[in-house]
Amino acid sequence: ELQRLLNEFHYADIAEILDEVNLEEAMYVIKLLDSETTSEVLMELDEDNREKVLKNLSNKEIADEIQELDTDDAADIIAELPEERQAEVISQIADEEHKAEITELLAYDEDTAGGLMAKELVKVYETWTVAGCLRRIRAQAKDVRRVHSIYVVNKQNKLVGRLSLKDLIVAKSEQKIADIYITSVDYVKVDEDAVEVARVMQKYDLEAIPVVDENMVLLGRITIDDIVDVIRDEADKDYQLAAGISRDVEADDSIWKLTLARLPWLLIGMFGGLGAASIIEYFNESMGAFIVLLSFVPLIQATAGNVGVQSSAIIVQGLANDSIDGNILKQLLKEFLLGLVNGFAIALIGLLITHFVFGTPYIVSITIAIALITVIVMAALIGTFIPIFLNKRGIDPAVATGPFITTSNDVFGILTYFLIAKIILGF
Amino acid sequence: ELQRLLNEFHYADIAEILDEVNLEEAMYVIKLLDSETTSEVLMELDEDNREKVLKNLSNKEIADEIQELDTDDAADIIAELPEERQAEVISQIADEEHKAEITELLAYDEDTAGGLMAKELVKVYETWTVAGCLRRIRAQAKDVRRVHSIYVVNKQNKLVGRLSLKDLIVAKSEQKIADIYITSVDYVKVDEDAVEVARVMQKYDLEAIPVVDENMVLLGRITIDDIVDVIRDEADKDYQLAAGISRDVEADDSIWKLTLARLPWLLIGMFGGLGAASIIEYFNESMGAFIVLLSFVPLIQATAGNVGVQSSAIIVQGLANDSIDGNILKQLLKEFLLGLVNGFAIALIGLLITHFVFGTPYIVSITIAIALITVIVMAALIGTFIPIFLNKRGIDPAVATGPFITTSNDVFGILTYFLIAKIILGF
Ligand SMILES: [Mg+2]
Ligand SMILES: [Mg+2]
Ligand SMILES: [Mg+2]
Ligand SMILES: [Mg+2]
Ligand SMILES: [Mg+2]
Ligand SMILES: [Mg+2]
Ligand SMILES: [Mg+2]
Ligand SMILES: [Mg+2]
Ligand SMILES: [Mg+2]
Ligand SMILES: [Mg+2]
Ligand SMILES: [Mg+2]
Ligand SMILES: [Mg+2]
Ligand SMILES: [Mg+2]
Repeated sequence: ELQRLLNEFHYADIAEILDEVNLEEAMYVIKLLDSETTSEVLMELDEDNREKVLKNLSNKEIADEIQELDTDDAADIIAELPEERQAEVISQIADEEHKAEITELLAYDEDTAGGLMAKELVKVYETWTVAGCLRRIRAQAKDVRRVHSIYVVNKQNKLVGRLSLKDLIVAKSEQKIADIYITSVDYVKVDEDAVEVARVMQKYDLEAIPVVDENMVLLGRITIDDIVDVIRDEADKDYQLAAGISRDVEADDSIWKLTLARLPWLLIGMFGGLGAASIIEYFNESMGAFIVLLSFVPLIQATAGNVGVQSSAIIVQGLANDSIDGNILKQLLKEFLLGLVNGFAIALIGLLITHFVFGTPYIVSITIAIALITVIVMAALIGTFIPIFLNKRGIDPAVATGPFITTSNDVFGILTYFLIAKIILGF
Repeated sequence: ELQRLLNEFHYADIAEILDEVNLEEAMYVIKLLDSETTSEVLMELDEDNREKVLKNLSNKEIADEIQELDTDDAADIIAELPEERQAEVISQIADEEHKAEITELLAYDEDTAGGLMAKELVKVYETWTVAGCLRRIRAQAKDVRRVHSIYVVNKQNKLVGRLSLKDLIVAKSEQKIADIYITSVDYVKVDEDAVEVARVMQKYDLEAIPVVDENMVLLGRITIDDIVDVIRDEADKDYQLAAGISRDVEADDSIWKLTLARLPWLLIGMFGGLGAASIIEYFNESMGAFIVLLSFVPLIQATAGNVGVQSSAIIVQGLANDSIDGNILKQLLKEFLLGLVNGFAIALIGLLITHFVFGTPYIVSITIAIALITVIVMAALIGTFIPIFLNKRGIDPAVATGPFITTSNDVFGILTYFLIAKIILGF
């Protein structure tokens, strides 16, 4: 009866349950599922759980599951297997066409259009008639879960246009495809970056996009559900980078995995803190009566950190959405002005509070205020410059947010603070 | 010729160009476009630019554009108009059905399924035959840009199942819909939260989802392109909150708007810094020979801030992905252990470096090390507790990341540091 119950659940729900139970229980449930459900459940499992389950299945069993999956998912699962198993599993796939398609897909980088595409699609030749087309589509469509667009190709298999099922149904059966298809068709090249594919599909509101090679030969298609996952993963990654988490982890991962993801950034922050300590030690010796300056180090540090994170986050997002033109100077000028506005506001309040509440001498309060303005402007410029610079060098600018920016601003901010104090107060 | 050239561009590209030029130029181009393109371009413009353009169009002109849009987009545009114009524009819409549908949609909250859905859909009654169905769909489908699923309803207009166009084409023309439709159909209630709709559509890989009222009566459908925008917006918002940016801004917004979004968090950080200053002032009086402790304030502060941001980010993401069960104690215990592991690592390195490189006395180095462990564990617990607590109270946990966590950890961290020092060093 468990079996009957399970088959009424959606595979995504079964996978969610299996992610929570232990391996033995998961394997027990998996053996109960019918083969089609098993393959879909496998696809939806957390990557680390899937790895464990696959270890417990024979090559033949994996090959049978893969047989049920769309080619994109099949290739992804095989790519996750240890190298030595891959060839064996592939060799056990019964359907020769499926085998060839999966092998083709395995050759593409997973972060490109080729790594996202599936071979399942419905294509028609421009010379066909509507009636002939419908007949052939009935055959092709059996393998294709959802028909988004019908791609129209010429004799050389080059993409020339598209057609919706709706257009086909509305057309007269004796019409030629060549007379009714739409020539404006969006497509991506097979080596296009996955994030760029996502940007195009979002911009043009596409549910599927055909993938072509450099000669416009139709190779496959990418569907929006996989792009939704790309968008979510990319957003999660950027969020974690901004928070100083350097690997893809989740709240329910092991403490060991979480430590590996978090400790590196803590170490960087620590060396920043030790750098700040040596700066303070250095100035401390000559500071004499102005020892009160030390009390406001946290204020300088917090302000520099916050401004840096704000600036870098806006720039990182602007770069991701393509809403920033590459003009570094324009952005720097803007952040400079923004820093001045925010800096004067914060400095004025700081001046009043330090003098009237803390009772620091005017000259010290003025020093703190000037340091605040300078540090805010500098932090804004650093926060703007670094991501744009990294982006130009082809490095993901998202690494420049969070602890990276905070740490460098901590050190620079404290150094600037004491240098300004030394000049004004002359110690 | 500009006109001919423009009509070859995709509306999303035209909108991108218009976002860059000034209002006068934008209006000039808009007058050149044909009405269907204009309406789509309007939809794709930045919200603030759209506002300006709409100000320059008469009520009649807006009504004509709206006529061309899907009901969801039409309602969104009207909702953006100043209250007094809304009724006038609606009254000028010629098509009575469109008018009624838009008026209905305006009643729903924009962050719910109702606010995302469109009235355009293809529905069939379970009593129809395949042939009759195809005939009627040919008529209905004219209004529906893309047919995802065909929704099957009973006499009371209640959703009972779905059908794909493919199923319909593959079926025999004399078959009854009742015999071929699929009864398992995903749907959302009209008052469901938009983020939850996105989660469901992503989980089940849906391209469209029907929306029903509490009696299962079919009200509309939501398409994945609008959900992709929800996912992106939500991710952008969380990212900005984590970076201390409190309103929805972009890199190309005005300095004034950016200041309004950024200054509040800088002020909060500033008051944290001033709080830290009073703590230091207080302990400074009795510290005497242990003045060297002040040099390591930035180290404590940076570490507390980084740990807090890491913990809160993981929890916020876990809550967003539903991967955290509400068990606060379990999460707190885990972060406690994680804090101990990270804390010991950082403290050990800190101990060695402060003693051997900075030459601080052993007892001071030990004090710093113990403070580091304590502060890391505390920061991890605070970073875990606050987002879970906010979430339970129905507040978006994402506000608890970034400057909020950093600032509270700065203050608590420094206080803890000096308290521990006072106990160990006995000043
Ligand atoms: Mg792949
Ligand atoms: Mg879009
Ligand atoms: Mg759209
Ligand atoms: Mg897929
Ligand atoms: Mg990125
Ligand atoms: Mg998991
Ligand atoms: Mg709406
Ligand atoms: Mg999915
Ligand atoms: Mg999927
Ligand atoms: Mg829509
Ligand atoms: Mg959120
Ligand atoms: Mg803009
Ligand atoms: Mg900080």
